[in-house]
Amino acid sequence: MAGPLISFLSDFGSGSTPAVCRGVMWSIAPDARLLDLTHDVRQFAVRDGAFLLARAVGYLPVGVHLAVVDPGVGTARRPVVVHAARGDLLVGPDNGLLLPAARELGGATDAWEIANRHLFLPHVSSTFHGRDLFSPVAAHLAGGLDPDRVGPGVDVASLVDLRLPEATARDGGLDTAVLLIDRYGNARLAGQPAELASLAGPLTPGRRFRVSIGERRETVPWQATFGEVGPGTPLLYEDADYDGLGIAVNQASAAERFGLELDTPVRIEPV
Amino acid sequence: MAGPLISFLSDFGSGSTPAVCRGVMWSIAPDARLLDLTHDVRQFAVRDGAFLLARAVGYLPVGVHLAVVDPGVGTARRPVVVHAARGDLLVGPDNGLLLPAARELGGATDAWEIANRHLFLPHVSSTFHGRDLFSPVAAHLAGGLDPDRVGPGVDVASLVDLRLPEATARDGGLDTAVLLIDRYGNARLAGQPAELASLAGPLTPGRRFRVSIGERRETVPWQATFGEVGPGTPLLYEDADYDGLGIAVNQASAAERFGLELDTPVRIEPV
Amino acid sequence: MAGPLISFLSDFGSGSTPAVCRGVMWSIAPDARLLDLTHDVRQFAVRDGAFLLARAVGYLPVGVHLAVVDPGVGTARRPVVVHAARGDLLVGPDNGLLLPAARELGGATDAWEIANRHLFLPHVSSTFHGRDLFSPVAAHLAGGLDPDRVGPGVDVASLVDLRLPEATARDGGLDTAVLLIDRYGNARLAGQPAELASLAGPLTPGRRFRVSIGERRETVPWQATFGEVGPGTPLLYEDADYDGLGIAVNQASAAERFGLELDTPVRIEPV
Repeated sequence: MAGPLISFLSDFGSGSTPAVCRGVMWSIAPDARLLDLTHDVRQFAVRDGAFLLARAVGYLPVGVHLAVVDPGVGTARRPVVVHAARGDLLVGPDNGLLLPAARELGGATDAWEIANRHLFLPHVSSTFHGRDLFSPVAAHLAGGLDPDRVGPGVDVASLVDLRLPEATARDGGLDTAVLLIDRYGNARLAGQPAELASLAGPLTPGRRFRVSIGERRETVPWQATFGEVGPGTPLLYEDADYDGLGIAVNQASAAERFGLELDTPVRIEPV
Repeated sequence: MAGPLISFLSDFGSGSTPAVCRGVMWSIAPDARLLDLTHDVRQFAVRDGAFLLARAVGYLPVGVHLAVVDPGVGTARRPVVVHAARGDLLVGPDNGLLLPAARELGGATDAWEIANRHLFLPHVSSTFHGRDLFSPVAAHLAGGLDPDRVGPGVDVASLVDLRLPEATARDGGLDTAVLLIDRYGNARLAGQPAELASLAGPLTPGRRFRVSIGERRETVPWQATFGEVGPGTPLLYEDADYDGLGIAVNQASAAERFGLELDTPVRIEPV
Repeated sequence: MAGPLISFLSDFGSGSTPAVCRGVMWSIAPDARLLDLTHDVRQFAVRDGAFLLARAVGYLPVGVHLAVVDPGVGTARRPVVVHAARGDLLVGPDNGLLLPAARELGGATDAWEIANRHLFLPHVSSTFHGRDLFSPVAAHLAGGLDPDRVGPGVDVASLVDLRLPEATARDGGLDTAVLLIDRYGNARLAGQPAELASLAGPLTPGRRFRVSIGERRETVPWQATFGEVGPGTPLLYEDADYDGLGIAVNQASAAERFGLELDTPVRIEPV
């Protein structure tokens, strides 16, 4: 029988740090299936981590999801466990990282502050709670520990939340904003293709839109895939990696081409 | 008992995309052993992917090999499953990516076009078949699904093939070409040390060869290992990572030193 | 029941090379739990590898630890297996890579030179012992092979050792040196916070120290976490990733700010 699943997302990078955490988890829950989501979240970028975790969890088996992007490590922020309606447990700092993912899993139903030091490694450092506190707790939970054992229950409404930008229809166009920029410079925008279609009609390949970014105005076609436009040509498309609207430039960086950063407002209107 | 093996190669990079695919696979085949070959294939570089997959599969257990380097995603290219003589199943786009690996496994014996939508995720995006179509099919096959269930059989001879450059003996020398350049600038050349030895005699350490690249002529020694030449000195050697002839510069980049690119012709003659 | 653990550290980078080794190991020991520690050790940097391995092993389950950072591959250096007092087996080249980790595991108690070619892949290349020799031997050992079967016993005292810089108290200050620089430019220094505290008194947050690096003198506070100082401000802290003293600059590179390299001497005195 397959062991319990623990997914793991952090900003720890490509060194040996995530592996040490996996070692701690396998020492406690030897039969766990460990699934590294990514450790390349930009350092301390809680919002990027929250977005990536929220986009991923729906595709994972029910399990324990450990997430550590924790600029406040060693300060007063609470370490928490959050139970989501689907049956998953989210483990990490209470800084907004976990709630968007919990919403994808049906919503947070219960939460606990991690306080039971018997579950931690014998020495808890001030700067590496991922290894000393969160990893052992995640592994104990995967092994079947009752969450009531990790510490006192806390009111779900008291958890730090983090709301990602959303798209709004206005004057026949869609006001959206940059949610995430990937390593190719493709930008994921807030909102879904369906929202654009509801105000503009069917998103047929080649359909043209006016895109406004700051002072810049550009006509950009909707396309199903990058390959439908020439190299260097921009397109609007369904960004399937992150389930939503995307803007890209075939074989180039949309972020550079359009000067996009996180939260840059982008307006899309049918031509 | 160990679960079935699924290896996985793509150009998805170091973000959370490959992990989401693993999550989909573990949701369907919870006891599968998942082996990420690499996700750092240059984006859309089908030939690099085909070469890396072909070099690796012979070292892996018999299993399902999922490979996604797919510039044509969302266009008319077929998604396929290919059975190889050794007993493996290769899953991916029919764009040349799979057949060199099938040859390493004894040759393609059967193939099917992936068409059974009951196997896919409920929503199949136009740009992320790796997650929505290929990963679930690979997982179902690893779990024991009869390949006849994925879709209609197709003629193996109709599959898109891709031939990598080969080496040819001519006028007492070896005409070869660059197959792949690694992250250190070492170049893997078409052909095997045995082919060079058959025209030049034993490849003893220190044996000197004339290497011709475009207008450039240089005398380069054969060596067993980088450490046998000084820093900055070129060498010809057996590139064991990729099982073949290699040219490198100790502690520097042969690609920069010799202006090598993919397919650059390289002639090697005994001095 | 969970399978045996094999951890794996190398300088093979992010290509498919480590995966090919995993394929070899799973072909021999199909139920092994494979834990990649890191493959991003700087190429041929035996000392970095030795340090990272030594820092990690104590957090891992008892098992087989495969480590390959091997600038001497193909030369006369011995391939070895080292048994540590905790019950672990370390597998790799006899170049200093293994003994610091063995010390963390209670010390090396026995060692063997790897010589039994029946355990290797059928063809052993001159440049890729990681795949052809070390991986199969590690997998056979994980599967329960008696280490006496890998080759003749060797005197533990004859193994190549490697001593990392240590900290020394002198004239009321601590003479230390740079052990490792991470990807953010944070520097891990030889020595433990306890050594500094024993000559300076309690390391309370905000406590100021004079740091001397070459001709440079700077006053740097002790802090529990980066977030306690402003961006661009240096701090001394407990570097929990690597269990020891660290010097960093919040949201910037201490290596650049202070001109730090490996082994750069750093003196810390209470103000």
